[in-house]
Amino acid sequence: MAHRLAVLDRFYSIIPAGGIGSRLWPLSRADAPKFLHDLTGSGKTLLRATWERLEPICGGQRIMVVTGRAHRAAVEAQVPELADKNVVLESEPKDSSAAIGLAAAILQQREPDVIVGSFAADHVISDQRGFARAVSEAVVAADAGYIATIGITPTEPAIGFGYIHADGNLNIQGAPSAVRADRFVEKPDLAVAKTYLADGNYLWNAGMFISRADLLLEQLGESQPDLLSGILELAQAWDTPSRGAVVDKVWPKLTRIAIDYSVAEPTALKGKLAVVPGAFDWDDVGDFAAIAKLHSGGRKSDLAILGENARVLADASSGVVVSQSGRLISLIGVEDIVVVDTPDALLVTTSANAQRVKSVVDALKLSGRNDIL
Amino acid sequence: MAHRLAVLDRFYSIIPAGGIGSRLWPLSRADAPKFLHDLTGSGKTLLRATWERLEPICGGQRIMVVTGRAHRAAVEAQVPELADKNVVLESEPKDSSAAIGLAAAILQQREPDVIVGSFAADHVISDQRGFARAVSEAVVAADAGYIATIGITPTEPAIGFGYIHADGNLNIQGAPSAVRADRFVEKPDLAVAKTYLADGNYLWNAGMFISRADLLLEQLGESQPDLLSGILELAQAWDTPSRGAVVDKVWPKLTRIAIDYSVAEPTALKGKLAVVPGAFDWDDVGDFAAIAKLHSGGRKSDLAILGENARVLADASSGVVVSQSGRLISLIGVEDIVVVDTPDALLVTTSANAQRVKSVVDALKLSGRNDIL
Repeated sequence: MAHRLAVLDRFYSIIPAGGIGSRLWPLSRADAPKFLHDLTGSGKTLLRATWERLEPICGGQRIMVVTGRAHRAAVEAQVPELADKNVVLESEPKDSSAAIGLAAAILQQREPDVIVGSFAADHVISDQRGFARAVSEAVVAADAGYIATIGITPTEPAIGFGYIHADGNLNIQGAPSAVRADRFVEKPDLAVAKTYLADGNYLWNAGMFISRADLLLEQLGESQPDLLSGILELAQAWDTPSRGAVVDKVWPKLTRIAIDYSVAEPTALKGKLAVVPGAFDWDDVGDFAAIAKLHSGGRKSDLAILGENARVLADASSGVVVSQSGRLISLIGVEDIVVVDTPDALLVTTSANAQRVKSVVDALKLSGRNDIL
Repeated sequence: MAHRLAVLDRFYSIIPAGGIGSRLWPLSRADAPKFLHDLTGSGKTLLRATWERLEPICGGQRIMVVTGRAHRAAVEAQVPELADKNVVLESEPKDSSAAIGLAAAILQQREPDVIVGSFAADHVISDQRGFARAVSEAVVAADAGYIATIGITPTEPAIGFGYIHADGNLNIQGAPSAVRADRFVEKPDLAVAKTYLADGNYLWNAGMFISRADLLLEQLGESQPDLLSGILELAQAWDTPSRGAVVDKVWPKLTRIAIDYSVAEPTALKGKLAVVPGAFDWDDVGDFAAIAKLHSGGRKSDLAILGENARVLADASSGVVVSQSGRLISLIGVEDIVVVDTPDALLVTTSANAQRVKSVVDALKLSGRNDIL
């Protein structure tokens, strides 16, 4: 126990706050990405809720946020406690390997034996204790030399998430539930998802990675040497007056790759990926169907209403309404409907079509309608 | 033929332009009723189209419009040709017997042998020649002492219209198609509507009544003596300086009753109602399903888009979109949908639920939300 506490003292959280959340358009926009919205009706944005979930674990002085320059003010407004030195601004998005890798490299520069954990800014978890327990086991597993992830125990044959296959206990002192993860699998179809659920050794990939910073960077260097050298050059200059010049030079060349591919999968193949099963609720709220489900508790007949001052008059209708325009919204006899009402764009679809929202965003991009994205 | 022309010289059209069109909320409002909208995409409001349909028949100097005080400016903007003396303003709505009866009484005062015809301001007819032919037969039938109506030859077993039962030729010189109408029937259910269609002697009640003004008022007096005496008091004062005082005194007491009940049905029972079958297209555009149908020509897969500058991005969707807000409207995978997007209210329903829109309006009324009605 004393050991675990000592290990947790070396822990630092990284929150990559990027990603617009295209499937949540027109609610999520380039200038109002998903993490800046309250999708749960809690009164807190997802970013704020993420901060408040991590703060009791590592303390507010040990949380770093990586975000786009355009979101700096909004992030700081959401998290006024965030220390200046813990804001890493991206000149342009370069995917998760660069974001998390750079944060890890900066932190390791400052604190060589740091253990870092990355947690998306836009996921929903309500079981704080279950989450904290899983994180602390993952930190211990990381200290033992593993790259650790937290895999969510599936409650249904979800087809919207990737899965992690667990294989064999690791017997790590202080991390009794940590097991070896031998492979990642992409989003399955329903038949396959059902076999995963029945199998019992498949967990949802929640994209949380906890690792000693040095090991994370070592693995990144093995698979992406150019990216690592760029990251190290940035990290060395970060706390010096030459940061700006180095950013201008190095940033544009950083390789875009998800950390799942650059770090997690190669580590799993080597047998060095540990997964701590998390039996807590978790959702990445990837589309409006997820929002509807989150609010209805699975009851098909419910109508979820999001938005301050929402004025909705509904008759024989279910699904989700997001109200941002202040207008009266009237629904009659529409089931599993998705209505997103914003000042300049309106979306009407159904839960079943929620994943197709991205195609509208793509069409708008193609037609140059960036003003509305 | 010469006789028919002479008779038509005595003909005057009355356009009662009242009725909000509650089933078309939030497009139709108290301050923007149905007749002030272009529901066909023709570029003309329904009122303007009604005027242009009647003008070739009786001339622009022989059309009287009865409307609410609040709509005077809008009506005059739509019909700048409208003579001042031909605008009858209602202090408050008193239903069709009062509106048409007063217009008839004023006209008869000015021109004792006038034949009047009343035509709703918010119906859609595209076959101008077919319409004009039916009206001229109805005028001749009216001159022969009948109260005449025009019944539309049904093209399908519609459940949204009332029907007129025709029974036996009247052999009126100059009105060869006029037949006796012996009864009106309310909107039927589908099974009954099918028997009407098969029977061949049922016509849609389009609410057009053509009659000598004196006979119309006589019938009104038989069924509604108090209403008639109010109307006559108003008519006598109308073209004099005492109009205002008499309106203030008499108007509030006028009985509210539809002309169908006060005049048409009693006349049918007496065997004095003639109906001229009209084989032209006609629709009262009573709800959004009617609008969808009007635009799609019956093709279920079509998406009708109404509104200047409408910006709609639709994928696998059908039904009708009314755009008044200028916002981008995106539809994905919604069929037979009705989306009405106005600056302060949004309606989402389906064609099948189009008739239920009135219940929303009723609910808003009950909750005192007149600002949005």
